[in-house]
Amino acid sequence: MSNNIPSKGYAAKDASGKLSPWQFERRPVGDNDILIDIKYASICHSDIHQMKGDWGKQQYPQVPGHEIAGIVAAVGKNVTKFKVGDRAGVGCMVDSCMTCDSCTHGEEHYCDNNATIFTYGYPDKTSPSGISQGGYSNNIVVRDHFAVRIPDHIRLEEAAPLLCAGITTYSPLVNANFNIGDKVGVAGIGGLGHLAVKLAVSKGAEVYAFTTSPDKVKDILAFGAKEAIVVDDIAKLKPYKKKLDYMISTIPAQYDVAAYASVVKPRGHYTQVGMPVGFELTLSNIGLANSRVNFNASLIGGIPETQEVVHYCADNHILPQIQIIKAEEINDAWLKVMNKEARYRYVIDAATF
Amino acid sequence: MSNNIPSKGYAAKDASGKLSPWQFERRPVGDNDILIDIKYASICHSDIHQMKGDWGKQQYPQVPGHEIAGIVAAVGKNVTKFKVGDRAGVGCMVDSCMTCDSCTHGEEHYCDNNATIFTYGYPDKTSPSGISQGGYSNNIVVRDHFAVRIPDHIRLEEAAPLLCAGITTYSPLVNANFNIGDKVGVAGIGGLGHLAVKLAVSKGAEVYAFTTSPDKVKDILAFGAKEAIVVDDIAKLKPYKKKLDYMISTIPAQYDVAAYASVVKPRGHYTQVGMPVGFELTLSNIGLANSRVNFNASLIGGIPETQEVVHYCADNHILPQIQIIKAEEINDAWLKVMNKEARYRYVIDAATF
Repeated sequence: MSNNIPSKGYAAKDASGKLSPWQFERRPVGDNDILIDIKYASICHSDIHQMKGDWGKQQYPQVPGHEIAGIVAAVGKNVTKFKVGDRAGVGCMVDSCMTCDSCTHGEEHYCDNNATIFTYGYPDKTSPSGISQGGYSNNIVVRDHFAVRIPDHIRLEEAAPLLCAGITTYSPLVNANFNIGDKVGVAGIGGLGHLAVKLAVSKGAEVYAFTTSPDKVKDILAFGAKEAIVVDDIAKLKPYKKKLDYMISTIPAQYDVAAYASVVKPRGHYTQVGMPVGFELTLSNIGLANSRVNFNASLIGGIPETQEVVHYCADNHILPQIQIIKAEEINDAWLKVMNKEARYRYVIDAATF
Repeated sequence: MSNNIPSKGYAAKDASGKLSPWQFERRPVGDNDILIDIKYASICHSDIHQMKGDWGKQQYPQVPGHEIAGIVAAVGKNVTKFKVGDRAGVGCMVDSCMTCDSCTHGEEHYCDNNATIFTYGYPDKTSPSGISQGGYSNNIVVRDHFAVRIPDHIRLEEAAPLLCAGITTYSPLVNANFNIGDKVGVAGIGGLGHLAVKLAVSKGAEVYAFTTSPDKVKDILAFGAKEAIVVDDIAKLKPYKKKLDYMISTIPAQYDVAAYASVVKPRGHYTQVGMPVGFELTLSNIGLANSRVNFNASLIGGIPETQEVVHYCADNHILPQIQIIKAEEINDAWLKVMNKEARYRYVIDAATF
């Protein structure tokens, strides 16, 4: 008789980009695991990219979701980090080798042994379905190290988006080491970008937000940005040439990287966090040379930094702008995310699965 | 009656990649100009790319060549930098606005007013042919600022390649600010790469050279590299993962940038100086994220730094490995450059035009 734990959620059954209810099983709670009763899971553009096969062929059924917040319902015998009843969150990964240079330096997402198990769709021999299954569901079993504490002074539904959108923008922003008063650009003001604006403002930057959606301007200024620039033509970037100290782009599609990079001061840095189809970007080498800007890419952040962003946002009241939806509204919400209509993060009430 | 100056050289007449003799005219020597009797001009892969239209449609006839060394034959009335009989060199550009922020900071190649005139094929209303005409010829007229001194203790034929291959590798290497003893990688060991190896060695680096040509290994070690790695399979890069402090790539074609970047330590920098067809590179965003490496591109260098590399190489005896050819051998030499058979720079004796 199996000790697997029954779970129910919404899964992609194929690459159509449509989800439907699915009942499945989680592994039993191991000695180093915790079981979390999920309360909220939010919707990331990555969920859509991956389920549609934009980043490679997928195994189905697959439950997306890597912005997860809930309550600890059980703990394994070796677990000291959590106790039953604690508030806990899970982000984009659920395991790694824990012994390599990257893992032991808090960068488990860059595991040198390629043993990072991302939260959904990754081969996982401990999972009854053979792959990791994500957070659009009512529970999850995860190794304790890969869950973070959610303090009492932030609502679970507002903490959930921090587990991916928050850490993905926080990590490069803090690693950019900009000074208070520096000019920081944010390109692409969606789920990630709106948090990037708030985080950069809270860290003392003068923020310039670049969007293609004119109707987001008012929101962007309310988030604390100094300027909101509507880039309906690439020429709109010209007045900002060499003006910024640093820039982060959340644009999850092919775009003119060198043109955007040109707004950063020579020798400055520019970080791409949006992941386009195929994970590939084509950029103008001569355009990048002209800007003299350093281009880098950043993928989420490690567990210690993920814990840090949750505390930082709770302490400083940096909260995502959310809309709570029911499970049956997921497919409609996905369409809105693809149509740039999300304002700015849909959060699924897990009680509705 | 025209005061234009007769010139003869080798020109592309079309995009075939074949050159043939051509007689043409240079502008008269203006108040700020010098006339140089060219003694040597060397062959850069860029010459071939541009004449073949790989970087955009060209006007023909067009004389390539931007590695030029010779003797000053006349000076304009305002010129104090040179006198007749001086040894002088010209690199990749012959004019710019001279007033913008980039120009006044010694980065005339990145002129903010887009007024840089590159040495051949650029619109130039002072040129009788309407475009700048390069150094595969017996003379050139150039604004004094854009010529550099060639000291007496370096042969003109060995100075010529420094004007592009030298500055293009020297500029990013010195801007990388690596320390003595640091591990520096050089990818692509041709005209640029072999100078990059020598320059990095002379600056105290422990150099790792990555080549696809097994028969270059002996040369590379003789240039002072610590190791020569034959990358006949991308897996050959794996043992070097995260080992280097900095890397420069001279590869002038599409390649797996993220795989090469993975040999640099996290947070390190990687500079692309080879310019592929279309000036574009497609790179794996997730691969670059995994490496945590900063990617930048660099285009030649400014005039002050070009002067510096000529002095540095003369003083430290950092010399390109050259083969002197006659004008009639240019087409054959071009084929060898394209077939990776150059060892390592062809220098044309301008007396044979």
